[in-house]
Amino acid sequence: MEVSEARLRRDIESNAEFGAVQVEAGNARTVLSGTAADRAAREYFVERCRDAGMAVSVDAVGNVVGRWVPEGADPDADAVAAGSHLDSVPEGGIFDGPLGVYAALEAVRAMQAADLDLARPIEVVNLTEEEGQRFGGGLVGSAVAAGDMTVEEAHDLSDDGQTLHEALDDIGFLGEGTVDASEWDSWLELHIEQGTRLEDAGMAAGIVTSITGLSRCAIEVSGEANHAGTTPMGTRTDALAAASEFVLDVEDAANEVVAVDSSSAVGTVGKVGVGPNAPNVIPGRVDLSLDVRDVDPDAIETIVDRARASLARIEDERDVEASFERPWHRDPVPMSDRVRDAFCAASEDAGVAVTAMHSGAAHDTMNIAQVTDAGLLFAPSRDGISHNPAEWTDWEDCAAATRVLAGAIAELASD
Amino acid sequence: MEVSEARLRRDIESNAEFGAVQVEAGNARTVLSGTAADRAAREYFVERCRDAGMAVSVDAVGNVVGRWVPEGADPDADAVAAGSHLDSVPEGGIFDGPLGVYAALEAVRAMQAADLDLARPIEVVNLTEEEGQRFGGGLVGSAVAAGDMTVEEAHDLSDDGQTLHEALDDIGFLGEGTVDASEWDSWLELHIEQGTRLEDAGMAAGIVTSITGLSRCAIEVSGEANHAGTTPMGTRTDALAAASEFVLDVEDAANEVVAVDSSSAVGTVGKVGVGPNAPNVIPGRVDLSLDVRDVDPDAIETIVDRARASLARIEDERDVEASFERPWHRDPVPMSDRVRDAFCAASEDAGVAVTAMHSGAAHDTMNIAQVTDAGLLFAPSRDGISHNPAEWTDWEDCAAATRVLAGAIAELASD
Repeated sequence: MEVSEARLRRDIESNAEFGAVQVEAGNARTVLSGTAADRAAREYFVERCRDAGMAVSVDAVGNVVGRWVPEGADPDADAVAAGSHLDSVPEGGIFDGPLGVYAALEAVRAMQAADLDLARPIEVVNLTEEEGQRFGGGLVGSAVAAGDMTVEEAHDLSDDGQTLHEALDDIGFLGEGTVDASEWDSWLELHIEQGTRLEDAGMAAGIVTSITGLSRCAIEVSGEANHAGTTPMGTRTDALAAASEFVLDVEDAANEVVAVDSSSAVGTVGKVGVGPNAPNVIPGRVDLSLDVRDVDPDAIETIVDRARASLARIEDERDVEASFERPWHRDPVPMSDRVRDAFCAASEDAGVAVTAMHSGAAHDTMNIAQVTDAGLLFAPSRDGISHNPAEWTDWEDCAAATRVLAGAIAELASD
Repeated sequence: MEVSEARLRRDIESNAEFGAVQVEAGNARTVLSGTAADRAAREYFVERCRDAGMAVSVDAVGNVVGRWVPEGADPDADAVAAGSHLDSVPEGGIFDGPLGVYAALEAVRAMQAADLDLARPIEVVNLTEEEGQRFGGGLVGSAVAAGDMTVEEAHDLSDDGQTLHEALDDIGFLGEGTVDASEWDSWLELHIEQGTRLEDAGMAAGIVTSITGLSRCAIEVSGEANHAGTTPMGTRTDALAAASEFVLDVEDAANEVVAVDSSSAVGTVGKVGVGPNAPNVIPGRVDLSLDVRDVDPDAIETIVDRARASLARIEDERDVEASFERPWHRDPVPMSDRVRDAFCAASEDAGVAVTAMHSGAAHDTMNIAQVTDAGLLFAPSRDGISHNPAEWTDWEDCAAATRVLAGAIAELASD
C-alpha cells in the first residue's frame, strides 16, 4: 500500500481553510458544530469521500459515514470503521480531529490502489460535536452511536437558544437513523497525542493501551466575606486561604499516588472563582474544579478520597463550610487487544517505530470501545501543544501514522 | 446642649431617599458622584444648612461647606470643621458618610440652641467622591482640600467618557476656589466603624488613635498552561499551586506579625484571576492582590517583605516566573491629641462610654490630618456590616456619638 503524504496534507490543509482565523503565528480554525464553517468542512469531506467512490450517509445527529465495499467483500459483513471529528475549539489547531478523519480516507484510497483482498466493508466517519464547544459536554456523536445518549437527548442539547437539531437542519446535515457502533467489526481512530511522550521518545506513533478514567469534581468553600481593613486576623474565616490549602493537598495527593501507586495519575485544580473578588474584601466564597485522571481506577479513587479528606480537615480546622461533588466520572477504557495487535503488526510492516502508551485525554473512542473492539493510535504533537494555533505534527509523522492505520484497517478487514 | 435624635434621624432618613434602591431586606441607596441622586442629596443638604442659618459655598471640586459664625465669635478665626461624605457605593447603606455630615449639622443646631460662648466659626462639610466609585480611587474632595491633588487633576478624572468637571457642572455643583483644610483650626469626622469592636465591647463610640497605613500590592505568577490529562505531574509548572503557597505564606506572615509585633496588622489576598481558568487546563497564570494594613509602619514592611521573600522562594522551587509590585502605599496617620482630648472630655460630659481604637479603613480624615489637627470618631456598626443594605447603627447610638462630636466641636471652638 502506498499512503500519499501529499494527498493527506492537501486534504488537511484544505480542511484548515474552513473557519480559518488570522493569527500572528500558527494556523487557527474555529469550527463549531452547526455553523457555516462546520457545513463547509462537512461538505468538503463528503465530496472527498465521493471522489474515492464511497457512498455517503448522514445520521440523525449529523454523523457522516463514507462507505466503501471492496470488490469481493461481503457487503453484509460488519464493517471496519475509522475516523475522528472535524469540529474544533475556538482558534484551535488544524490536526486535532481532521488528522483522524483524513488519515482514514487516505487509508481507503491506499487500499483501493493496492488491490487488496478484503472481506469487509470499510467506513470512514466524521463524528459530531466531539469538542463540546456548543452542545453538551462533548463526544456527542459517538455517545449516540454507542447508545449512551438517545437521538432525542442529543437533539435537545442547546446553545444560546438554538438546539443541535435546529443547527444540524440549518447546515443541511440532519439525516436519518443512527450510526450503530455495535455493528462495526472494529473501530480505529488516529489522533494527535496532545502530550510530549512521543516527541520525547522520538517515535512516530503511539499505540494506546487504555484511555484514562476521569472524575470531574466541583468544590465550594464558604467562609465569611469581610472588610480587609477592619477584620482582625484572628477573627477571619478566609475562604481563599482554605481553598489554597486544598489546592496544595490535591497536588500532594497526586504526587504521592504517582510515586507509590501509578505513575500516570494526575490531579488538577484548573478553574477557580472567588467571591466577592475585591482587593479590600476577605474572600467569602471560592469555587474550584478538580479533574482527576488515571488508567488505574484505584488511583483515581485514592486521589478523590484524599481530596475529600483534605476538605473535611480544612472545614474542621478553619471553620469554613465546604461541599464536594463529583458530577462526572468515567472509568478507564482499555483498548481492544485485537486492534492493538493489528496496529503492532502494521507498524512492523510499515517500518514505523511505535511505543505503547495511555491516553490522558478523552476521545470518541472511549464511547465506541463500550460496544465494539476499538483502538486508538497517536501521532506526535510538537511540544505537546493542542487547542492552540501552534498545534503541529510534521507531515511525515502524519503519513507514518497513517501507514500504520491503513495497515491495521486492511488486516482487520481481511477476514 | 441638646442633641435631637429625632431631628438627626429625620435628616438621615430623608437623605436615604436619594438614590434609594428597593431591596429585600435593609435600606439600600446608590449615590454615585455627579449623578441625579447625588444632586438631590446635595440640594437637600444645602437646604438643611440654610434652614440652620448657615452660609453655603461650593468649591471647584464640589465640596459643600455650610458655615456658621456664632454670635461673638471672630469671623476671621480659623474654623472648626466637621463632616464626611454623602456619596455611596452601589446599593450601599444609609449611614456610611451621611451620619458624619448630618451629625455635624445636628451639632451646629444643638450649639445654636444652647447659646454657648464660642470663639470660632463652625463649618459643616460634604466632601466629594469619598467612595471612588466613579472617579479615581476615592477620597477625592479631601485630597484636593489637603493639597494632595490639584483641582485640574481632580477635574480630569473620568468615568466612561465623562469627566468629574462635566459631572459636577451637570448637577450644578461646580463651584469656585477650593476648600483649604490647612486653614481649619481642626477637623472632626464621625463615621460608622465598619467593624465589630464597639459592638463587641458594648460601647457607643470609639475615639480613633490612628488610621492604619495601607500597602496595595499586585502579584503575577506565570507557569505553563497545559492539558490536565496529558501532562504528567512531574512536568507541570502550575501557577495556581504556586499562588496557593503564596496565599498561605501571606496569612502566616500576618499571623506571626500579629503574635509578635503588632496585634492590629492584617494582610489579605482578596482578588484572584486565573488563566485560562478551565477545568481541564493546568493554570498558566494567576494574578493576585495583596492588601496590607497596620498602625505600625514597620509591621506593614515586615509583612510586605515576607510576601516578597515567599514569592522569591516559590519562583525558585517551582520554576514559575513571578512579579511583585506595590503601586500604592500610605503610611499610618495618627490622630491629633488635641482633638482626641476634646472627644474624651465631651464623652465624659455626655456620659457616653467610649474606647480608644484604630481605624482599619481609609477615611477622608487621612488626607485632612496631613494639614491640620484632625480626629475621627466611630459609631458602632451592627455585625460590622457596611457597603451593604444591612448596614445599621441604632439611632440612640447615632445620637450618643453625635453628642460626643458636638461637645468636642464646642470645646475646640471655644478658644
